[in-house]
Amino acid sequence: MILAGEGLKSGGAGLIDNAAMTNRNIWRLNARPTDHIRDGDLIYTTETVPSLAEGQFRLQTLYLSLDPTNRTWMGDQENYMPPVEIGAVMRGVVAGRVVESRKEGVHPGATYAWIGEWADSTVTDGGGLQQLPELPGIDLATTFGALSLVGPTAYFGLLDIGKPQPGETLVVSAAAGGVGQIVGQIGKIKGCRVIGIAGGKAKCDFIKNELRFDAAIDYKSEDVGDALDRLAPKGVDINFEQVGGTIMKAVMARMRRFGRVPVCGLISGYNGEVVEAPTIGTTMFIRRLLVEGFIVTDYAPRFEEAHRELAGWLLAGTLKTRLDIRPGLENACDALKDLFTGDNFGKLLIEVTKP
Amino acid sequence: MILAGEGLKSGGAGLIDNAAMTNRNIWRLNARPTDHIRDGDLIYTTETVPSLAEGQFRLQTLYLSLDPTNRTWMGDQENYMPPVEIGAVMRGVVAGRVVESRKEGVHPGATYAWIGEWADSTVTDGGGLQQLPELPGIDLATTFGALSLVGPTAYFGLLDIGKPQPGETLVVSAAAGGVGQIVGQIGKIKGCRVIGIAGGKAKCDFIKNELRFDAAIDYKSEDVGDALDRLAPKGVDINFEQVGGTIMKAVMARMRRFGRVPVCGLISGYNGEVVEAPTIGTTMFIRRLLVEGFIVTDYAPRFEEAHRELAGWLLAGTLKTRLDIRPGLENACDALKDLFTGDNFGKLLIEVTKP
Repeated sequence: MILAGEGLKSGGAGLIDNAAMTNRNIWRLNARPTDHIRDGDLIYTTETVPSLAEGQFRLQTLYLSLDPTNRTWMGDQENYMPPVEIGAVMRGVVAGRVVESRKEGVHPGATYAWIGEWADSTVTDGGGLQQLPELPGIDLATTFGALSLVGPTAYFGLLDIGKPQPGETLVVSAAAGGVGQIVGQIGKIKGCRVIGIAGGKAKCDFIKNELRFDAAIDYKSEDVGDALDRLAPKGVDINFEQVGGTIMKAVMARMRRFGRVPVCGLISGYNGEVVEAPTIGTTMFIRRLLVEGFIVTDYAPRFEEAHRELAGWLLAGTLKTRLDIRPGLENACDALKDLFTGDNFGKLLIEVTKP
Repeated sequence: MILAGEGLKSGGAGLIDNAAMTNRNIWRLNARPTDHIRDGDLIYTTETVPSLAEGQFRLQTLYLSLDPTNRTWMGDQENYMPPVEIGAVMRGVVAGRVVESRKEGVHPGATYAWIGEWADSTVTDGGGLQQLPELPGIDLATTFGALSLVGPTAYFGLLDIGKPQPGETLVVSAAAGGVGQIVGQIGKIKGCRVIGIAGGKAKCDFIKNELRFDAAIDYKSEDVGDALDRLAPKGVDINFEQVGGTIMKAVMARMRRFGRVPVCGLISGYNGEVVEAPTIGTTMFIRRLLVEGFIVTDYAPRFEEAHRELAGWLLAGTLKTRLDIRPGLENACDALKDLFTGDNFGKLLIEVTKP
């Protein structure tokens, strides 16, 4: 996302019903989950929307992005941003379109993305909003869902930390998810041999047949370590880590000397499970492994570079992205749970309003 | 060490007794230790020295460097070089002077360092030998013991991986040892606040009073975590890790965001102890920590840079090094044990022959 400027000039603004905007639907955080998310931790409700003050504008939410990190915002453990307060509207990355404006230079129809709320509309003075990149030939859901945040996550984590070289072996976990599918395809573009770890035959077939990964490991039906021994007998050069726990242990035990491990996420522990994590021990040291945690927002000043590259690959057909779009804000909580059981298939989005 | 060329032209070669070189004293590996080194694991003995063939030369050993990694060479666990074979002469980093030569261009008096043997003399064709850097004003023991290998270890680990910035807090474990004392002082040169962890009052006084570290933690009498909370309440930016285990866990729990951890060694586990190692988990990820293992020989092509810088600091008085020199090859095994109990004080060397 680049800094706010003028938004899209065209598009389906006519589908948005401006007249009925006196209330808004929201999800509030009601209780901090201690393990998996339970009904009642988030509560779907309605509140009155304040009328616009001078300098404000109202956006109708088009898409809500659901990401594993949302779960971490619901807890109050150490994190890279403060937790959502109990009673507050749940935080989420959203895309929205201006439907009413009392701010100079902001016109109805402009489209933005921002770290906002689980709500079908938002009143703002524009702070923190970023214009959605206009990527010619790429639809809004893909631009927002696949390229705005998960694309740069894959791009910077793999290229800046993973530093892939032609002929190297790259393993990516959560390989059919929003970030994983892009990581693997950038790996292919850079000449790596790519092995994806995913849950179930459909996802494994998808990453092999549609995304052209070299191999897939179904962690639900195979021992990951045994499969790696078979598929990568000389070991792994880059482990793009999203999962943690026993899957990460299996990959880490098979890293080659001078291997790199961008740690993008550790979803296996987000629900409070005590996971069997790999240790910083002799293997890491003797093999000169590099392990580095990162959060995509650290790379914000360079997002434009990632957007340009990703859009280029997408338009050239060397990069594909699969979205898992669910209609209806009221379904957001159930959909979020699916991320932790692997019941999403592709980058998960809630379509709050048809664009 | 730079590539072999002509050695030192002057020096105490007159002290070396060329006439008696028909036998040599050596240490052989007799058994692989499973925990700490026991008497009998290494055996001190004498063998006949072969006469020189054409193209060979004989070096008298001046110094044998004793380093924690020697213990890892005695075992057959995964390592960065093959284990010493049972029955073979024990491997060690040595400095020696040519006493007899049948190789063109190699003259008596030339001084070399190499990964050689625990032996008081060696016959070689020169493969793997490197000329000891000639550092004006710096004696041979310091050049070999403190600058040849431990100096570059400190230099590249801290500067290339640790990337110290002025005002940052640097923690170094094994702080009074060969590498640690240089790491801390380079940290001071680069403007860091330096906290050393060492065992006992004498070492702590030394690193504070002689080496000008900002603070010292005596792990034998203090809780390292409590001491860090007091001395570095805002946390640690760089952890130069040499120890592993509970001391490393205490430091890792107090790393600041974007902290760096060069892993130079993990001595607490070298004797086969099961140590409580820190994990690659959410703390590492959320704080965007970088952890990287390294072995100094990977930086061999850049050793000259490190030697030049280190020698400059040493001559300017901004860098001091303390050596712990023990006379007599026959004492090598007992001296090596001292590294694991902390009974050395400074870079440990055996003076095999008075130079």
